[in-house]
Amino acid sequence: MKKVAIAGATGAVGRQMLECIRERNLPVEVKLLASARSKGKVIDGLVVEELTPDSFQGVDYVLGACENDVTKRWMPWAQEAGCVVVDNSSAFRLDDNVPLVVPEINADDIDHHNGIIANPNCSTIIALVGCDALKKEFGLKRMIVTTMQAVSGAGVKGIADLENQVKGEDVPFQAFPYQIAYNLIPQIGDFDEFGISKEEWKMQNEGRKIWHEPELLVNCTCVRVPVMRSHSESITLECETEVDVARAREVLKQAAGVQLKDDPQNRVYPMPLDTTDQDDVFVGRIRKDLTDPEGKTLQVFVCGDQIRKGAATNAVQILEKLLEKAE
Amino acid sequence: MKKVAIAGATGAVGRQMLECIRERNLPVEVKLLASARSKGKVIDGLVVEELTPDSFQGVDYVLGACENDVTKRWMPWAQEAGCVVVDNSSAFRLDDNVPLVVPEINADDIDHHNGIIANPNCSTIIALVGCDALKKEFGLKRMIVTTMQAVSGAGVKGIADLENQVKGEDVPFQAFPYQIAYNLIPQIGDFDEFGISKEEWKMQNEGRKIWHEPELLVNCTCVRVPVMRSHSESITLECETEVDVARAREVLKQAAGVQLKDDPQNRVYPMPLDTTDQDDVFVGRIRKDLTDPEGKTLQVFVCGDQIRKGAATNAVQILEKLLEKAE
Repeated sequence: MKKVAIAGATGAVGRQMLECIRERNLPVEVKLLASARSKGKVIDGLVVEELTPDSFQGVDYVLGACENDVTKRWMPWAQEAGCVVVDNSSAFRLDDNVPLVVPEINADDIDHHNGIIANPNCSTIIALVGCDALKKEFGLKRMIVTTMQAVSGAGVKGIADLENQVKGEDVPFQAFPYQIAYNLIPQIGDFDEFGISKEEWKMQNEGRKIWHEPELLVNCTCVRVPVMRSHSESITLECETEVDVARAREVLKQAAGVQLKDDPQNRVYPMPLDTTDQDDVFVGRIRKDLTDPEGKTLQVFVCGDQIRKGAATNAVQILEKLLEKAE
Repeated sequence: MKKVAIAGATGAVGRQMLECIRERNLPVEVKLLASARSKGKVIDGLVVEELTPDSFQGVDYVLGACENDVTKRWMPWAQEAGCVVVDNSSAFRLDDNVPLVVPEINADDIDHHNGIIANPNCSTIIALVGCDALKKEFGLKRMIVTTMQAVSGAGVKGIADLENQVKGEDVPFQAFPYQIAYNLIPQIGDFDEFGISKEEWKMQNEGRKIWHEPELLVNCTCVRVPVMRSHSESITLECETEVDVARAREVLKQAAGVQLKDDPQNRVYPMPLDTTDQDDVFVGRIRKDLTDPEGKTLQVFVCGDQIRKGAATNAVQILEKLLEKAE
């Protein structure tokens, strides 16, 4: 039986990775790794071990759920042990030697790995899964996106901030610079000289790589919202051909990983509470942008669970593909 | 001393209108009107009277803060009594005989009233005040807007829903079809055959009238968010000329009703909690849209208090202009 280690097993994403492996009955033996602080913790019947240079001996696959700096520290140990790593940090995503994979879109890229496969940014995965069938149908030149991102994107500390603040508890903020309860914060990540944040660049940079579209343009605004764990995205799609709403619904109905939720007259549309703890991305509010005289612009609203499809589920799907190929 | 009646004085907007009149020390005598149910209630030292056909006798100005159907019922009574009405409902906004006014933008339109002046939609006021100086500087052809609207937009019932749900109280929803706590609802108003909601049409329809720009194009997505009383808007501005961020900041610094909050490196940007109970609209996250090869597109983030500048403050500013003209 193949042996899988989860590095960063005590975080929100790490815990979800274990849950996803169990739900899917993957025939693997799992080892949980985390910092010394978490050593001995028991998660779902497994004892957490301290991540050391020897942790990866005898391990076949690693699911990485650590911050960039921590990931960069243990990655050489995993590589030396011959593991294949599916890494959720952003440290290696744009590395030419590292495939960046959303299995519904570019599973074939997995074949070209050199020991590391990167899991994309959560908002990017959710947007791309929601829009991939539309891109195939109408072509896609440019996206204008406003993300409304859940606090879980900042990990368990983000969730704690929102919970504490709603309860009115006077404790220091752990994840966000400002109160997030009853508020919105239009900053996720640091800003560059153009006034664009790191998170805002990811959808263009990672989208180009995943879709193999080096010319794709994405104007992105990222906003943190007081929602627990699902991201929502309001997306304008400038396409190559004229768009058609009925056809858009048809292709989305067939799309892997997507649930069409688009009957606004009957109050059917995607909402982050409904995608919470769901693997699928919900797409709805599909309409033609009447302000484009050429009729080539489509407007959609997309929601997806940031911890599941935006992180853990996607990584475990990649692991699943690796296991299939290894058979 | 001129006599002012507030119709719908017990709602969130009506109460704020009284507060704004008092803050500004307007030299008027105020009368509070509401439905029979609220008769006898005391608000800020004034006893609420029942709104009847005789209520407007001897009244000079009416501030309307009622729903459309209620407004249509009492409007003939106010007109027969010779009152000038500043009305916050949407019933008369697009009527050719009714000026639709944001005092910072088109105060001169007040002169052409025939007894009714309409107060625009809250999101429209906030967007237009935030963007007017940019429009003057760069010209404006098209806006792509995602609004994130506070629960107060649905009145006191909207606020009650969020408060009850956060407390975990198992009471029926009063304002929204779904839970709004920890959720987003991409519906405000009913949808038409294009899948566009009434609220989403308002920014184009009202924006054209206020700005005297019959060709203005607005693609709008309206989302309800778990914020108490300030709306936020992520706005893409397609301009007529090349845009310049430094110049944008300069003109916004001079703009009436605007506070520039744009130093993202130092975590200065507009947030709805900061505009709560403020009359000014905050503008920030100003950047050039690098995905427009012509360099004519600007991206901004705008917040404003929906009950104040989005409704009561704007109406009371119009009243103030009327009083000045009557001197």
